[in-house]
Amino acid sequence: MGTITKALDLLDLFSSTHPEIGLGEFTRLTGRDKATVHRHLTELAENGFLEQHPLTRAYRLGPALLRLAAVREAAFPMRKLLHPIVAALAEDVGELAHASLLQGDALSPVVHADPKLHGVSVHFDESELLPLHATSSGLAVLAFGPDALRERVLARPLAHHTGQTVTDPTALKTLIVEVRKTGVARLEGAFDAEVTSQGVPLYGEGGVIGALSVAVPSIRAQPEKLAEIATRLRAAAQEASRSLGGPSPSHSRPLPHAARAAHP
Amino acid sequence: MGTITKALDLLDLFSSTHPEIGLGEFTRLTGRDKATVHRHLTELAENGFLEQHPLTRAYRLGPALLRLAAVREAAFPMRKLLHPIVAALAEDVGELAHASLLQGDALSPVVHADPKLHGVSVHFDESELLPLHATSSGLAVLAFGPDALRERVLARPLAHHTGQTVTDPTALKTLIVEVRKTGVARLEGAFDAEVTSQGVPLYGEGGVIGALSVAVPSIRAQPEKLAEIATRLRAAAQEASRSLGGPSPSHSRPLPHAARAAHP
Repeated sequence: MGTITKALDLLDLFSSTHPEIGLGEFTRLTGRDKATVHRHLTELAENGFLEQHPLTRAYRLGPALLRLAAVREAAFPMRKLLHPIVAALAEDVGELAHASLLQGDALSPVVHADPKLHGVSVHFDESELLPLHATSSGLAVLAFGPDALRERVLARPLAHHTGQTVTDPTALKTLIVEVRKTGVARLEGAFDAEVTSQGVPLYGEGGVIGALSVAVPSIRAQPEKLAEIATRLRAAAQEASRSLGGPSPSHSRPLPHAARAAHP
Repeated sequence: MGTITKALDLLDLFSSTHPEIGLGEFTRLTGRDKATVHRHLTELAENGFLEQHPLTRAYRLGPALLRLAAVREAAFPMRKLLHPIVAALAEDVGELAHASLLQGDALSPVVHADPKLHGVSVHFDESELLPLHATSSGLAVLAFGPDALRERVLARPLAHHTGQTVTDPTALKTLIVEVRKTGVARLEGAFDAEVTSQGVPLYGEGGVIGALSVAVPSIRAQPEKLAEIATRLRAAAQEASRSLGGPSPSHSRPLPHAARAAHP
């Protein structure tokens, strides 16, 4: 692992439930040498990627990230572009919808919306990376994304997130083949024990760039409801991929068979 | 300069007017060895801090920045907190107002608002870092911020941004003394030839963390107008500093002298 990766890895330890981390905790979490961790933290802070609490000396993510995110969003307004589509989908299906973008070998949430129509709702943390093998978003990306990504993920140990996470590469390959047939990835309790989610790929200019998903508490996941969600998910993903500069892949066409036959 | 700083420096080359940069351009802009630059770019891309255009292979800022900015904003909602204050100030004075946070030896814009009441308005690029010696925001931070920061900035060569930028350390020191007396930094044409701006410091728990400013086209910068803006700027900065966890320093008190005497 290079020095830059080691330093940037430290930033990934922050989350909305863990917004401040001290030197001791960094050392413990990474299992690395304290002097090295301190040097990396100092250099990140000097560049505005971290800042220190004036009294506790604990580290927080820094203002440089706000500025760089604004630069990216100004030039490539993914969040702005995806927000209305995700919000409309969530409203349509009455459940939590989210879009995420491929970041290394995981998915980084970009936007989510939940109409909160029910007494029980799925908790979604936009600051948490989504693992590819354990989420419907990830499975959709594995099924339709680059071969190299799939091979890399299948070659590594796959982490358990719940008792239902598929961690056997052969079983995961079988799942991927299934997703390729239906165009929609469906997982029950693989990331959160009580949640069933369905995901479809999002395409940009160069192929799969992320995924669009709807997650529902498993107690509300009746087959007819899931089928209805899948249909709307496909349509929303096609709309999003069009805006993101992607092609319109046949497996995400929202048209019914009759209409499709009329537009070969 | 450390490896991490060298890599992170590459990210600062992006701006909203320059959202894609190729390897050759990175090499030219940095004057560094091409192989080293390429290694840094690859490592940044592997970590989601950059992504490559699928066809041109040019680099863009990556999705990791969106996620990390969201994590920071969720825990320390600077943008959310400053937005209403900046918007109300802009509305009040009828001119462009902006807030920025200290990032290394420059200020990083966080939010700006412009009611656009006039035919001529100040162009503000939120993706551009504000140099401390050439902006009213920076001058306010130099006047009330840490001694070490001021000494570091004064010891270095100061860049010309316009013909009116103060680049002589002695002249800059005189300006700083003046700002300490009035509590408000005022600069005419130092960063943009046709713009006059006034800035005051923003305080967090540990002291000065940034600045709040109002910028007007110099053609509209009559003395009475500037005095009125300065009063409102002080009041808005006090409100912002209170929300940011800072103390209420006497020089940013918005109270008139009579009222101040009544509350010693």
